[in-house]
Amino acid sequence: MLATIIHGERDIRVEERADPVVIAATDATVRVVASCVCGSDLWTYRGIRALARPKPIGHEFVGIVESVGTEVVDVRPGDFVISPFTSSDGTCPSCLNGMQATCDHLSFFGGKDTEGHDLPGAQGEIVRVPFADGTLVVVPSPVEAALIPGLLSLSDVMSTGHHGAVSANVGPESTVVVVGDGAVGLCAVLAASRLGAKRIIAMSRHADRQALAREFGATDIVEERGAEAGERIRDLLGGVLADSVIEAVGTKESMEQAIASVRPGGTLGHVGVPAGGSELPIQTLFERNITVAGGMAPARAYIPELLPDVLSGAIDPGRVFDLSLPLAEAAEAYAAMDERRAIKVLLRP
Amino acid sequence: MLATIIHGERDIRVEERADPVVIAATDATVRVVASCVCGSDLWTYRGIRALARPKPIGHEFVGIVESVGTEVVDVRPGDFVISPFTSSDGTCPSCLNGMQATCDHLSFFGGKDTEGHDLPGAQGEIVRVPFADGTLVVVPSPVEAALIPGLLSLSDVMSTGHHGAVSANVGPESTVVVVGDGAVGLCAVLAASRLGAKRIIAMSRHADRQALAREFGATDIVEERGAEAGERIRDLLGGVLADSVIEAVGTKESMEQAIASVRPGGTLGHVGVPAGGSELPIQTLFERNITVAGGMAPARAYIPELLPDVLSGAIDPGRVFDLSLPLAEAAEAYAAMDERRAIKVLLRP
Repeated sequence: MLATIIHGERDIRVEERADPVVIAATDATVRVVASCVCGSDLWTYRGIRALARPKPIGHEFVGIVESVGTEVVDVRPGDFVISPFTSSDGTCPSCLNGMQATCDHLSFFGGKDTEGHDLPGAQGEIVRVPFADGTLVVVPSPVEAALIPGLLSLSDVMSTGHHGAVSANVGPESTVVVVGDGAVGLCAVLAASRLGAKRIIAMSRHADRQALAREFGATDIVEERGAEAGERIRDLLGGVLADSVIEAVGTKESMEQAIASVRPGGTLGHVGVPAGGSELPIQTLFERNITVAGGMAPARAYIPELLPDVLSGAIDPGRVFDLSLPLAEAAEAYAAMDERRAIKVLLRP
Repeated sequence: MLATIIHGERDIRVEERADPVVIAATDATVRVVASCVCGSDLWTYRGIRALARPKPIGHEFVGIVESVGTEVVDVRPGDFVISPFTSSDGTCPSCLNGMQATCDHLSFFGGKDTEGHDLPGAQGEIVRVPFADGTLVVVPSPVEAALIPGLLSLSDVMSTGHHGAVSANVGPESTVVVVGDGAVGLCAVLAASRLGAKRIIAMSRHADRQALAREFGATDIVEERGAEAGERIRDLLGGVLADSVIEAVGTKESMEQAIASVRPGGTLGHVGVPAGGSELPIQTLFERNITVAGGMAPARAYIPELLPDVLSGAIDPGRVFDLSLPLAEAAEAYAAMDERRAIKVLLRP
């Protein structure tokens, strides 16, 4: 099969690899229908995250099940499935608590499973999925082509944006600020809107992203940063800061912006992968009674909840994909995202 | 009147001061029926918190209203009132959000009001209370003497323990760990029990406090610290850490213990005043999806909720007072708490 391999900084190649096969009795193999590039993939691409040796990359995909191990019962060959960006066994205490992102058998595509076997990346033709029953979500067939971007977004960005909104305690009548205008931030806007927020302020300086944020339900755009942004938010919300703030970047600066945007007694939901240096100031949180919640999204818990709204067209998170390329052009997909020519790129094997 | 004045490290004197009078139209004066010494008062007593000049001390009290300003409507002379440990105007956005601990007109007894006028401390005979309608809670008369310790506990420690439990998301069926066996920690045990927690693990090494924790609803006691404590908690809870952890100390060590005691996806409620050095590790919180909530308790919001249970005898948080002294012996009250001869000392003018 063809698979995307990252060899080093800005060195993405699509290469021939052996077809993945079922190893454990709980495995499945899935033929990828669509995959995509994640903002976090760019960390390795840009050399910020170290790479010891060439490795397969990508962790978001939808596809058709090809084969299953003898112990797999809920997923059958021929099923159209959405894979969360991590595997989960479905039976450990975290999974039973709906927190599959901390599963005892958590593993990452492109890395190794908990038995130490290599896992293919998602930016390829076939993926082996550990704990198929606990990981994959079956979509009732038939699946129209137009729905594929939306379904693919559930694999990570829409589930992650939703986790940000849920963690930030967004509900009907909430006032919300979203820090970050990448695919996750934009999905967080959509998730907040879906949860009934009455005001959603998207922080963005890019016209195309501002436009999509508005399509997704943002009521206001703030281009300012720092203290000026705080003032602007306060003005927009009648003299108080936001009930709920969603942090969707992960840098020290964005976390500070998020903390400075939440009202006393409000909630900050963070889903930006921490880039370091953003330890939380306990004294500030204590004095202002700010709740901080979030982390890696339990996509497996959210996909069944969000799926009906994607299938019905009530939400269309697939709009974050503003470029679609064949798998063979993966290198161009990375370049387009790196150079901010695209918000998020879909790859078709 | 007589008032307790702290002159310096371990120098507590009860002195004659001018009787406080109504200054603002929203003020009331209250003749103190009972006051007490707080663990946080000991910080100044021990010289950990700097003291520029002698000042009145104490922030918890119940008493009888003596006089009110012309704009006070809900509180009348003769009313028996509970005062939260801070004043609040009852009308600002934070107050309207139920977060009176971040009121625009927050002031501390023994400090200054927001107009810059001195406020008496609560360990005295008479206290001037700013924003009496927004601050004080009237208790329906008559008040039996036996209820006074319980009512006084609502002024701070029981409301603060309850805030820890609410912040830690304690509810029916929760498993809970309480870090800290001072009056607030013990009240947090009682609050968790009141909220229906199924398992409450109190961390304590003192027999008298362990006994009171059990009376308050603790199902288990853990004497271990650090990694050993984590193992013990995991054993007690069938292989997982706690759903909810309440941090009621404020030191770096206790915060680390608290973080190490909460399960992935669980919640840490902190009410220990941060002593410094305990910035929260964002990477750990992110990876384990731990929610951190809490801060200074909005006692004014909780007193009306907890009061009926104290009046009915459903809860008896007054049990944390294991020593009662006349106001004139305030110095001995401080010494007894400092030397851990008493959990919490009640002072009667």
